[in-house]
This record gives sequence, structure tokens and C-alpha cells, in this order.
Amino acid sequence: MRLGLKSSIVLHRISTKCKICPFTTQFSLRREVSTISSEGEEEVKQKLNDHNKKIRLTSETYPDIIRDSKFAKVSTEHVQFFESLLDKNGGVINGITEDAHDDLVSYNEDWMRKYIGQTKLVLKPGSTEEVSEILKYCNANMLAVVPQGGNSGLVGGSVPIFDEIIINMSRMNTIRSFDEISGVLVVDAGCILESVDEFLKKKNYIFPLDLGAKGSCQIGGNVSTNAGGLRLLRYGSLHGNVLGIEAVLPNGTVMDDLSLMRKNNTGYDIKNLFVGAEGTIGIVTGVSILCAQRSNAVNVAYFGLDSYEMVQEAFREAKVQLSEVLSAFELMDGKSQDIVFNVTKNQRPLENEYPFYCLIETSGSNSVHDNEKLSNFLEYVLDKEIVSDGVLAQDDSQVKNLWGWREGVSECAGHWGGVYKYDLSIPIRDLYGLVDDVRHRIEEAGLIGDTDEFPVVAVVGYGHMGDSNLHLNIATRRFEKKVENILEPYIYEWVGKRNGSISAEHGLGLAKKKYIGYSRSDTMIKLMKQIKNLYDQNGIMNPYKYI
Amino acid sequence: MRLGLKSSIVLHRISTKCKICPFTTQFSLRREVSTISSEGEEEVKQKLNDHNKKIRLTSETYPDIIRDSKFAKVSTEHVQFFESLLDKNGGVINGITEDAHDDLVSYNEDWMRKYIGQTKLVLKPGSTEEVSEILKYCNANMLAVVPQGGNSGLVGGSVPIFDEIIINMSRMNTIRSFDEISGVLVVDAGCILESVDEFLKKKNYIFPLDLGAKGSCQIGGNVSTNAGGLRLLRYGSLHGNVLGIEAVLPNGTVMDDLSLMRKNNTGYDIKNLFVGAEGTIGIVTGVSILCAQRSNAVNVAYFGLDSYEMVQEAFREAKVQLSEVLSAFELMDGKSQDIVFNVTKNQRPLENEYPFYCLIETSGSNSVHDNEKLSNFLEYVLDKEIVSDGVLAQDDSQVKNLWGWREGVSECAGHWGGVYKYDLSIPIRDLYGLVDDVRHRIEEAGLIGDTDEFPVVAVVGYGHMGDSNLHLNIATRRFEKKVENILEPYIYEWVGKRNGSISAEHGLGLAKKKYIGYSRSDTMIKLMKQIKNLYDQNGIMNPYKYI
Repeated sequence: MRLGLKSSIVLHRISTKCKICPFTTQFSLRREVSTISSEGEEEVKQKLNDHNKKIRLTSETYPDIIRDSKFAKVSTEHVQFFESLLDKNGGVINGITEDAHDDLVSYNEDWMRKYIGQTKLVLKPGSTEEVSEILKYCNANMLAVVPQGGNSGLVGGSVPIFDEIIINMSRMNTIRSFDEISGVLVVDAGCILESVDEFLKKKNYIFPLDLGAKGSCQIGGNVSTNAGGLRLLRYGSLHGNVLGIEAVLPNGTVMDDLSLMRKNNTGYDIKNLFVGAEGTIGIVTGVSILCAQRSNAVNVAYFGLDSYEMVQEAFREAKVQLSEVLSAFELMDGKSQDIVFNVTKNQRPLENEYPFYCLIETSGSNSVHDNEKLSNFLEYVLDKEIVSDGVLAQDDSQVKNLWGWREGVSECAGHWGGVYKYDLSIPIRDLYGLVDDVRHRIEEAGLIGDTDEFPVVAVVGYGHMGDSNLHLNIATRRFEKKVENILEPYIYEWVGKRNGSISAEHGLGLAKKKYIGYSRSDTMIKLMKQIKNLYDQNGIMNPYKYI
Repeated sequence: MRLGLKSSIVLHRISTKCKICPFTTQFSLRREVSTISSEGEEEVKQKLNDHNKKIRLTSETYPDIIRDSKFAKVSTEHVQFFESLLDKNGGVINGITEDAHDDLVSYNEDWMRKYIGQTKLVLKPGSTEEVSEILKYCNANMLAVVPQGGNSGLVGGSVPIFDEIIINMSRMNTIRSFDEISGVLVVDAGCILESVDEFLKKKNYIFPLDLGAKGSCQIGGNVSTNAGGLRLLRYGSLHGNVLGIEAVLPNGTVMDDLSLMRKNNTGYDIKNLFVGAEGTIGIVTGVSILCAQRSNAVNVAYFGLDSYEMVQEAFREAKVQLSEVLSAFELMDGKSQDIVFNVTKNQRPLENEYPFYCLIETSGSNSVHDNEKLSNFLEYVLDKEIVSDGVLAQDDSQVKNLWGWREGVSECAGHWGGVYKYDLSIPIRDLYGLVDDVRHRIEEAGLIGDTDEFPVVAVVGYGHMGDSNLHLNIATRRFEKKVENILEPYIYEWVGKRNGSISAEHGLGLAKKKYIGYSRSDTMIKLMKQIKNLYDQNGIMNPYKYI
């Protein structure tokens, strides 16, 4: 074939991810410990102890954060109220008057085990009215709360720091309605993303959002964190797709703004305040959202390029030639693909190695047309020497395999111990410059190498290039302060200078709260605090986080 | 051709629209009066007098609205301040200490001459800093203001009612930046939509919004009214496409939220409060917006259908088969096409007449592919007898001509005198039912007929079916209270019962202010008033309107 493409490839699947927490391996230690059966009991206990020693409460990791004494402590009387309000079967997990330690663990910890709270009370309302009653009571009694969806966030936003009551939305999981003509879907906040997308698949529709945690994350959480993910390039952000929101405000008011209409110019767009508010001004209980027609044909190409300039050229050409069928343009640098190769030992898609790789996906209604567009595009970029080599997936299995080289980076980067992860928006022209600069700083400081004495294994850059969204990962053997000092605030300053965003899609939560000033002016932060104060005068909603 | 399509058609262009106000003929009277030169002077004067008799100040049309005495009257001292602040050449139109009546007319009146204010002061700032100084001063001195863009709105939002100072944005008309890789454009609020789209065309990009008034409307006004228009089906709403906003708050604070990034999850999405706020909480001075790659190939088909059920079937099939290239699905009922025919006498696109017509547009990167998709689609819907006859435009001129049968409805409906216009969002299943019901009510009341004794000429329905957006027009020979009584509040109640929107894309302004309760709950209205009060404690921004 004159394009230099292999006509078929066989790739091995990246090792299966945990179904609960598909992002990294950090969760796997806990699963390992609890499932080892061939080892002696003592050995298991020792492992567990060693592991638990490493685990620190969030309040220990962040000693500067002090529990606000304005908040009441949960009393027996409070528990009685909630038990009278909610379903006897699973509506309340009560660690106040009962021993519920084991039941509370999975609610107190995020999936990475990075953020660990200390609540003794989890409430699981079954209806909007119950959420309203809970919040009204909490607000009147100065009880701090943390709304919790699938608990799959990356910034510690969905678990308490101290004894904040968790309001877990998983029992509100009904698909309320779907209009097959307009594509407008209405769901409870607790519906799991993957279940909703499966439901839509049967109707030949697609949810306008997809992300690694789809098997556990909930729509309410997606909306509350303005999740970005894999389909944003094609279907746009939730700010455009969410048509309506039902939310409960801290004082118990039900904001009934669940419009089914794509156009509704009757007053201020208050619902968008709740898209990305991370549960700090109310709890989203229902969402109406515009879903797109599902594409029948999906094609994926993977190619190698000699420079970041060529990557930009390829992106421009892809936009022009693939235009309406382009559904992903993902960037992976050479180091990121080395990491995937080193961990999985899978056969590389291309014969030679390159400093940059891109993955392009098209989704359309006609596979013949899409194939032709993609082939023409590849022919063009190869002829013009914009890309050096490329391969086109021949079937679904190869599509998945090629995606594995992109989606596997995050998981494989954690192979050596830990990962410093940054999720940044940077103007495309400058985007990769940050990776070069950070790698250079770490090399200069003598912190990177192939042997155990060096804390850093690799500095890799990859991400949703089509959305100007870089994931910068620093794979380490261990977390060391001197590495952190090289990275921060340098990275935030670098991004701030270029008017980028220090959190493209992961949100602020606890992790980024103190860095917001690098992406927002004092004026904006002041205006945001006004909004917080408008809705949550008592400050009971997800305290110590966000802004 | 077995599809029963004519292989080529020749249509005449709908009569050229006024470049300033492309919506209806209502403006044409003024033009007529001022341009008649073959008539005698007396005759012209008489016409002008007759015409002026019909024109009423908004304060006369709405006698219930009383000027709020908390607002100061503009004094000589105030004028001196503004004259010292703004450019001597055209920055201030001063009717306080000078005779500027003629210069003020076009600012005081909306393009329909339906809303006529009485300001004696127009300010035309040239920079964000000047807007800030103006608002700070007005806020401190309790001077009410009306922000004004291209003044092409349909609900009286952009002209004063009494003596509110007009802040006209036309002098802020610079394209600030455009990134050819990402498609992110940053413009001053006063840039004209058409100019911006022409600029983008040269770069092979498209502005994600198009509407009839593009030759006069301004981006700041588009954003402030959350304009919908013709490209929404394809590119989505401004809530999704606007990436950042620079706005001046009533106290002079410059909200500098002009992000260039598609993803930025660092805090509350305050900018979306300004999308559709109609100048009631601040003045938008700059906008950053994501623009899409321009499609090279545009195809248009026009077809006749026997029932509204078939229209819905056709829409569903179009979504499935045309999917990513579908850029418009417009509905026109038989009466609407009769009106266009009766006024223009143009040759109808199809040989026979049908109760419903649809116009479908595809836009894509490959005309061969798009033609094939559209032909397959037409073949399918004709074979299945979903549509009865259809025609496919063969060149750009025919594309324009077919669009004329859709875009001409609004203009032609005004041919007999006046039009009652309603812009509604209704779930697709119910959408056309309103037209039937309203027509039935008017027939029952004996108000419709072919002769002069009947006030109503026709009840027609058309609109952006792809967005569930119906335009209901009642073409009349004259405005009569008994017609109005048949229409209102009946139409609003009808829409309210079906959870539709009483203003899909035109906004609230003065015209719809009192009807918001049909589309929003008391809770939502209360929350909106909180927002208004948060930003504009003194209520100086565009008073008497919106909510």
C-alpha cells in the first residue's frame, strides 16, 4: 500500500482496568490485599499494616485546614431525624450510635485512597423531596454536608475532610424520560453514566459525554464537575448540552429548572451555575440533556510524527478534511508510548519510534464515506510528510487496541509507584512546551534516571489536543518534596502566564482550591464568592473546598 | 428521475430585504416615506403625518409602566461629565443642552418602530474602560441606562421607555484576535455579526450563529439575548460556544472572564449568567467564542408532506441518515407557503400543493458524500411515502431560492398590515397542534376571511423544527383587541401546559416580561430576582424589562 500503512495489525489489549476505578493502578493495592488467599494470614496482615501506615487522613495531609467550629457535631437526635425521614433499608449508614466503620470506609475514601474523610453518617435519599428535607434540616442545624456521586473525581471533591455528613445520590437512579424524536433525556442525578449510555445505545442515541470512569460515575456528578472527557470535541461541553437542572438549594428550596427545550430565553441561565459547582451551592437531583444521534461508523487511525509543529499541522488538516466526522484528536508523546510499551509489552502499532503520536477517531453515519475521508486525509498528510507513518484500524478489536495506547498512559504511568498528575488547558501553539520545560527542569535537578536512586522515571505529555487539554504526568518511584518543589508552583505559573487553565476538566475540589488564582483574577474570585454566599450563607455545602 | 424530483428548478429571489432590518416589512413604511421623491411635498407630508399618528411612545402603549422616581434626570452637569470622558467626535449625542432630536430618533426607536423611547442622551464608548467609567458614574448618580447593540431585537429590549441613557456599543468594533488552529475568536461587543462571519470565511471558519439581522446585529447583543437562529441545530447554543465574556458591572467593575480555553473548570460559570441577560446585570464588552471549520459543501432540499405525522417521520429519518451533516430542518405549513406565493408570485418549487413543507440543509466537507447521503435519504422517504414530492437545489442560486420560501414567510406575513408574532418552544410531538388550535379559535370567532371586514388574513406556522422552535404568525389587516383577546393568554397557557417556552429565542425584553410565569416557576423567578439584585442593587440596568 503506497501510504506505508500496515494493512492489518494485531495488538494486545492493555491489561484490564478495575471496573470501579478505571483511571490508574493506585486502587489495586487494596484489592490485592483483600483477595490474596494463597498467602498466609500473617503475611496478609503484615501487608495490610504496611499499606495502612501509608494511608493518611486528609486532615493529616492538610494540617492547615482546621475543622470550622461553627458546624454542629452530628448527635443522636440528628440521627433519629434522618432515620425517621429515610428508608430503613439502606437510607442511613449510621456510625454515630452504631458500629458501622466497615460500611463507612468506601464512602469516606476516594477511589485513589488519596483523600480520606472521617464521617460517621451517610444519607442516601431516594427522592428530590428527601434531599430537600435533609438539606433544610442540615442548614437549620448547621450540619456540614458533602454531596457524593460515583466518587470517581480526581481532586478530592466528593469525600469529607472531617465529619461532614455524606449525601450519597446512588439511590436516585431512575431514567425519568426520553424523547426519541428530539433526543432529550431526563435522568435522576444518581444514574450511572454507562447505564444511561447503554440505554441510549438501544435507541440509536449517544450520551454527549464519555470518560474512563463511566462504569461508576453518576450523571449528577458529571454535571456538578462539568466533566469533559472523550466526546467533547464532537458534542461540545455540558454547558451547551445540559438543557435543564433540578437541584436542591441548601435551604431546601427545589430549583425546578428541568426544561426539555433546546431553546428557552426566559430569564437568567441559573442552571449553568450548577454545572461545575462541585456541590458547593446545592445538590443536583435531576438533569435534562440533549443527546445526539449515535454514529454507525467509527474509524480510528494512529500515526507517528517527527515534531510538535507537524502535530499542529496534522490537527489543522484533520479539522479541514475530516471536519464534521472528526470525533477525537488525541496527542501522545514518545515517552508516553514507551511507558505503555514497557508496562504492557504489547506490540507497538508502528514499526519505528517517533517523538510524537496522534490518534484520530472519526464517527459518522456512513462508513464508506468516512473511510474515504480518512484515507484521503492520511494519504495527504503522508505525501506532505506531515506524518511519518500511520495505521488504520481494520475492525472493532483494532479500534480498541489503538485506543489502548492512548487510554493506557494514565494507568501505566503509575506502574513505578506514584504519579504527579496535571490536567491543563493551554493554547495549542504552546501546549507541548510545558512538557519540554518541566522535563528540562527535572533533568537539570538530577532527579530523573533509570535506577532507584532517582525519584522520577519519566515526564510524559498526552491529552485531548482537539480541546487544547494537556495531561502532564510525572511518573515517580516515590513522592518526594524536592520533586514537588520543582513542579509547583512552576507549572501553575507557566500556565497562568499563557492564560491557560490550571484545571481543564478535573475541577478544583480540595486539590486545586489554593491555585485558582493562577487561572482567575481577583475580581472573578470575588464574584464567585458572592455566588457561594448568595446560595449557601451558612457555608454548609462541601466546605473547605472549591474557591 | 425515479424519485420524482425535478432535476433543475428556477426560482425567483424573494424581494430584497432591507439591509438594516431584514425581519419584516414593518420598517419599510419609514423608508417609503423618506425616499418618495416623485410625489408632491404635500403628499409626502400627509403620509408622514398619517404615519406618525400611528406611532406611539412606549410609555403611551404601556400606560401601566410609570417612570421610577428613584432615577435622577439627566442634568447639564451629567452631560459635562460624559463629554469630558468620551470622544468629542461622536462619543456623545447630547439632546439635553443641544437640539439633537433628529440624531436621537434612530436610537430611541427599535427597527420595527414598535417601541419608542424618549432619551435625550446617547453615549458611545470606545473602550471597556469608558464603559466602566460611564456605569460607575451612572450607578453613583442613579441614572438609568439601556445598553444597545444593533437594535434588531423583537421584544423592545434595546430602547428606553422614558429618559434612560442609551449606551450604544457600535464604536467598540474591533476583532481582537483569532487563533487559526483552535478556532477561538475574540471580538469587541460592537462587532457586526456579518462582518465577523466574513472575516472568518476568509480563514475557512464559520461563526456558530446566523440570523436574519446579521447585517446590523452585534455580537454583544447576540450574546446578551442568547440569539438562536439558523445554525443552532448544527453548532449548538451560545451557552456552549461562548468561552469567555468581558463585561462591565453596574458599579464599574470589569468582569475579566475572557477565557480562550475550551475547557476551564476553575470555579462557577458566571459568564453564562450574561448570556441572555439582556443587559440587565451589566454590559458585555468582549466575547471569546469557539468557531467551527466552515463546510465546503452545502446542499438544500425542499419537499412536500401530507401530514404533521409525516413531518415528524421525516425529521427522525433525517437525524439518522444525515446525522453529522444535517445543518437545518425547517418546517413551513401550507398556509405559510401560500402567503409567500401570494406576495411574491414566484414559481412554487413543487408542482402540487401540500399541507406541510420542509427544508433540509446539509453542510459538510465533501459534496460528493453529502449529495449521496441526501439523495439516499430522499429516495428512502419518497419510497416509504413519508414525503410526497421533493426537489434538490442544483446550484447556489437555487439554494438561496429554496431558502427564500422559508425565510420569506416572516416578511410576507406582514404584507396585509400587521402580524402577531409568537416565538415558542414546544415538544416536537405537540408543536404543530398549537397552530391548528389557534386557527380553529379564530375561525370559530369569525375573525378570519378573504375580505376587508375580517381582521385576520391567515394563521401560519413555521420554524426551526430541528430545535423544537415554532414561529406562529397571525397575519392581519389591522390590529384589533378582539383578535388579541383570542390569542392571549390562550397561547401562553397552551405552551405552559406542555412545559414549552413562551420565548424560544427572542427573549423577554418589554414584550414578554409579564408572561414569564408561563415558562418559569415562582421559585425560578425568585432566584432570578436574587441574581438581578446581586449585580444591580440600584436597578439602573435596563429597567422596567426582563423579569
